[in-house]
Amino acid sequence: MTGTPAPPDTDGPAPFTAEDYAARMRRAAEAAEAAGLAGLLIAPGPDLVWLTGYRPAETERLTLLVLRAGHDPALVVPTLEAPDAAEAAGAPALTLLDWTDGKDPYDAAAGLLGARGRYGISDNAWALHLLGLRRRLPDVDHVALTRALPMLRAVKDAAELDRLAAAGAAADAAYEEIVKVPFDGRRESEVAADLAGLLRRFGHTQVDFTIVASGPNGANPHHEAGERVIRRGDMVVLDFGGLKHGYGSDTSRTVHVGEPTDQECEVHDLVRAAQEAGFRAVGPGAACQDVDRAARAVIDDAGYGEYFIHRTGHGIGVTTHEPPYMIEGEEQPLVPGMCFSVEPGIYLPGRFGVRIEDIVTVTEDGGRRLNNTSRELAIVD
Amino acid sequence: MTGTPAPPDTDGPAPFTAEDYAARMRRAAEAAEAAGLAGLLIAPGPDLVWLTGYRPAETERLTLLVLRAGHDPALVVPTLEAPDAAEAAGAPALTLLDWTDGKDPYDAAAGLLGARGRYGISDNAWALHLLGLRRRLPDVDHVALTRALPMLRAVKDAAELDRLAAAGAAADAAYEEIVKVPFDGRRESEVAADLAGLLRRFGHTQVDFTIVASGPNGANPHHEAGERVIRRGDMVVLDFGGLKHGYGSDTSRTVHVGEPTDQECEVHDLVRAAQEAGFRAVGPGAACQDVDRAARAVIDDAGYGEYFIHRTGHGIGVTTHEPPYMIEGEEQPLVPGMCFSVEPGIYLPGRFGVRIEDIVTVTEDGGRRLNNTSRELAIVD
Repeated sequence: MTGTPAPPDTDGPAPFTAEDYAARMRRAAEAAEAAGLAGLLIAPGPDLVWLTGYRPAETERLTLLVLRAGHDPALVVPTLEAPDAAEAAGAPALTLLDWTDGKDPYDAAAGLLGARGRYGISDNAWALHLLGLRRRLPDVDHVALTRALPMLRAVKDAAELDRLAAAGAAADAAYEEIVKVPFDGRRESEVAADLAGLLRRFGHTQVDFTIVASGPNGANPHHEAGERVIRRGDMVVLDFGGLKHGYGSDTSRTVHVGEPTDQECEVHDLVRAAQEAGFRAVGPGAACQDVDRAARAVIDDAGYGEYFIHRTGHGIGVTTHEPPYMIEGEEQPLVPGMCFSVEPGIYLPGRFGVRIEDIVTVTEDGGRRLNNTSRELAIVD
Repeated sequence: MTGTPAPPDTDGPAPFTAEDYAARMRRAAEAAEAAGLAGLLIAPGPDLVWLTGYRPAETERLTLLVLRAGHDPALVVPTLEAPDAAEAAGAPALTLLDWTDGKDPYDAAAGLLGARGRYGISDNAWALHLLGLRRRLPDVDHVALTRALPMLRAVKDAAELDRLAAAGAAADAAYEEIVKVPFDGRRESEVAADLAGLLRRFGHTQVDFTIVASGPNGANPHHEAGERVIRRGDMVVLDFGGLKHGYGSDTSRTVHVGEPTDQECEVHDLVRAAQEAGFRAVGPGAACQDVDRAARAVIDDAGYGEYFIHRTGHGIGVTTHEPPYMIEGEEQPLVPGMCFSVEPGIYLPGRFGVRIEDIVTVTEDGGRRLNNTSRELAIVD
């Protein structure tokens, strides 16, 4: 038996209703039809959470939401999980179709699909299940959901924005506290544990990552937190986030233990200027790649371009990584309500790294930061 | 940024070496060739952990291990994760091929594959990535790894058995403690938190599930733990497990708060007899389905067959759910070293449930339990 549901949120905003979920499912089916798709195949994970509120484990047992314009939404679900599915907030709008261990779940799913046509399928659907569906319906074609409908979950409504703002404020509160703890002489993993505790204290029900990357470890953008003992003179990249009320936080600040050198200040100022430039490029009609270009130009012009080795940002919502991506080549225009990170960085191998990250939402006339702690280089003890 | 690696194990068994991982990769490539496959495509998750010791997050960025007989193993990896990949225990046997944000990762992968042929792909590989590979190499065919090579990870060697036995012993220690805590008047979620703490205290680095299903909730096999307050007179299904030293535990016992009724005792005795019958059916050469049949026959014969609504067991290793499955129709013969659960149950809707589960390993002449707490109905307070 597996599967760990998110703990219940208490004292949170009013939960999304069955009508909210029904409306999302209806809009998704209509968007699919408009894109020339026969329907959508939704797997456990963020798509299913967003469309139904149902959060089962991803397992070898098939759970699949089928959305088709003109058809009622239907959820294929293992018999022994059907009681949980029936309790999901979005369940009233769903027809449940359960299958029992030993039966072929793809038979059950096939009955809901046409024999032909092109279906969008959740990015994170398991290959096992996609190949099972293809065996049963060889003339059906599939396309990844973020290729077919990349912006399906990208534009947040007011209730979603409230949750993202609350998650951002909680992450900011965690940052305001973490700069007060001792860094010098403690392991990265200890500071990371403090950060996780602070995120929970400020209302996160799930902590997704607590990066504490000190000294040379900061030059690896995906370093998490290890056994290195932090010392006076270290730059330390802090990048942390998770879910509060079902929506994500993700913010980065870089701090210094004791007094920084001139070059450390110079690199930090540069990243801060790049982050500001990326933020100022945000507004309706700008392309995603414009945000990346604006931030990157600042770093390129200063001669550090080769040390900025990742895209400038990613969307955020019911997950901490989703479209839209702020990256060269992404021509998607920004639309009010989109939410994403702006997080340039400079990584000097063997020495240190700097990253500054805010979640930003597109407004009618520009952008609004959902993280609002100081972006100056904080000196910690 | 996302991705949460397992915390390091301390005071554990000697870690697997680069040679251990190289040997696993070699055997997997040879098994693929023997099965008529051109190679294997391994995604982040249990397959990749088992083959390389590398445990990246599963994300929209492609990480893919390519194994082909006669070729060196190659790992396609995002540039910003390459430093982490290079530190994996299995990395010395790998050629790393990194790709940078904005490039097409499927181009990088395609260079490692033939233009034709059939590849096994990890069950949990993302549809996004499978469809990306198909776009780039439309004449390559794919089959889910557990269909092509279902027993790839199923037969455990001595070092793996030691870890599974240690994980089982730790889960048993947690059970011996949990029956001493008060149940009456506390929420399921509180007892579940106690269980999680005990698993960690006894060395688990990851807790995958802590089911506490009281009274009528016990009749739902996948109920986790909720806000129901446990009361005197309740049957309570406990089913819990996670990872210790990278290998899984999973055990269930059903306890009673105060004195049970005659029918509660009868149902519990029946499940216990079914579990014993399933265990006794384990041995080299028996088929997986024989274990299911043996356990099910006991419950069927007593007239409760319709209330045993799931398969009898699943394999366990670096994950808590994997082949082989003890289920009708699975003709795979048991082989010494296989490890799986034997966990029959009876679920009486609206009333209560009973499940008893041990991990069992196949020996030269039968089976050996890796869980050894009492299977009698424990009375708790």
